[in-house]
Amino acid sequence: MTTDEEHADAVELLALVATLEDHAFVRFAADAVNAPTADQRLTRSRMAALAVVRRDRVLDRLVELGADQAEQVARFDRVLDDFDARTEPKTWAERLLRGYVGCGVSDDLCRLAAWGVDAQSRDLVLDVLDDADHVETAVAALCDACADDAALSSRLALWGRRVVGESLQTVSQLLSSRPGLARLAARGLLASVGTGEGPSQEPQPASSVLNQLTAEHTRRMSKLSLTA
Amino acid sequence: MTTDEEHADAVELLALVATLEDHAFVRFAADAVNAPTADQRLTRSRMAALAVVRRDRVLDRLVELGADQAEQVARFDRVLDDFDARTEPKTWAERLLRGYVGCGVSDDLCRLAAWGVDAQSRDLVLDVLDDADHVETAVAALCDACADDAALSSRLALWGRRVVGESLQTVSQLLSSRPGLARLAARGLLASVGTGEGPSQEPQPASSVLNQLTAEHTRRMSKLSLTA
Repeated sequence: MTTDEEHADAVELLALVATLEDHAFVRFAADAVNAPTADQRLTRSRMAALAVVRRDRVLDRLVELGADQAEQVARFDRVLDDFDARTEPKTWAERLLRGYVGCGVSDDLCRLAAWGVDAQSRDLVLDVLDDADHVETAVAALCDACADDAALSSRLALWGRRVVGESLQTVSQLLSSRPGLARLAARGLLASVGTGEGPSQEPQPASSVLNQLTAEHTRRMSKLSLTA
Repeated sequence: MTTDEEHADAVELLALVATLEDHAFVRFAADAVNAPTADQRLTRSRMAALAVVRRDRVLDRLVELGADQAEQVARFDRVLDDFDARTEPKTWAERLLRGYVGCGVSDDLCRLAAWGVDAQSRDLVLDVLDDADHVETAVAALCDACADDAALSSRLALWGRRVVGESLQTVSQLLSSRPGLARLAARGLLASVGTGEGPSQEPQPASSVLNQLTAEHTRRMSKLSLTA
C-alpha cells in the first residue's frame, strides 16, 4: 500500500468518526427534547455537548492531515438516513436501546478500522470512542427499566434484534461502497485476533467483519440481560 | 425586602437564565440540522454545546444557593412555547433573525433583572449573557444576506417586527405572572439609568421595562440596517 493510499484511508476513517459523533450530537439533542424528566433532559443535553467536543477533536486531526472540515463532514452526510428512518423509536426505552445498539456497532467498526491507520490517528479514534460515558448511563437506565418487567424485557430484546439488523445492514453497505474502509476493517480484524503479524496475513472478507461486530453486539446485550 | 425574598428572587432569575440557555441549546441544535451548509452546521452545533456550558454554570450557582437543578429547569418549562409556535421560521434568514431578536429581548430582560440580585449571581448572569458570540455571527450572516437584496431586507424588517412583538408579549406575560421578576426588572431599570441611588427610588412599572427593551431592540435592528 502506498503512503497516498494510507493517507486517504486515514482521512476516510476520521471523516466517518466525525460524522458519527456529529450524528450522536443530533440524536442526543433530540433525546433531550424527548426526555421524560428534567434530570434526563439535562443529562442528554450534556452528552450532546460532549459529542460536539469529540467530533471537533477528530476534525482538528483532519485539518492536520490537510483536509477541509466542512467537506469531510459532508462526505458521509446521508450514511445514517436509512437506519434512522427504519428504527424510529416509539418509547424512551426504545430510544435508549437504539442508541446503545446502533452506536455500539458503529463504534466497533471504527475501532477495528483504527488499527489500519497511522498511530496518531488511531490513538485519537480509540480515545474518542472510549470517551463515551453515555454507554454506562444507557445500560443503567435500561437495566432499571427492565428489572421487574419481563414483558418490557422481551419487547426490548425484539427491538434490539431489529436495531442490530439495521445496523449491520448499514455497515455492510458502507463496506461494499467504501473499499478503503473495508480494507482498514479487514486489516483491523487480523490485528485484533492478536497474532501480532496482522498486516502480513491475508485480510479477512467483509463477512468476517460483520461476524465480529455481531459477536460484540451479543456481549453488549448480555450486559442488559437481554437475548441478542 | 427581606433576605428570604432576595434569595427567592435570585433563584427565580437564575432559573429563568438557565431555562433560556437550555432553550438556546435546543434551538441551536435544530438550527444545525436545518443549516444550509456544512460550515453553518458545524458553527451552530458548537453554539449548542456552548449554550449547555453556560446553562450549567448557572445551574451550579443555583445548587450553591441550595436549589435543585432539575426542579429549577422545569420551573419555566413552557415559557417559550407560545413564542415558538407563533414565530416558526420559513427560511434560514428568518431563523437567524428570530434568534437575534428573541434572545436579544430576553437577554436584555435578564440583564436588567440581574441588577437586583446578590453580586455573585449578578456577575455570573452578566458574564453568561456576555459570552454569546452567536450574536456577532448572526449579524454578519444577516448583513451578508441583505447586502444586495432590498426585497429580502424589507421582508426581514417585517419579520423582525413580528418577532419583537411576540417577544415583548412573552416578557409582558412573564412580568405579570412573576412578581419577583417584575420587581427585579423594575429595580434594574432604575439602577441602569445611572442615578446610582437605584433601590431607594420608586421602582418603575412593567410598561417602562417594556419601553426600555423596545429601545434596545431598535438599536439592535439598526446594526442590521433594518427598520425596527
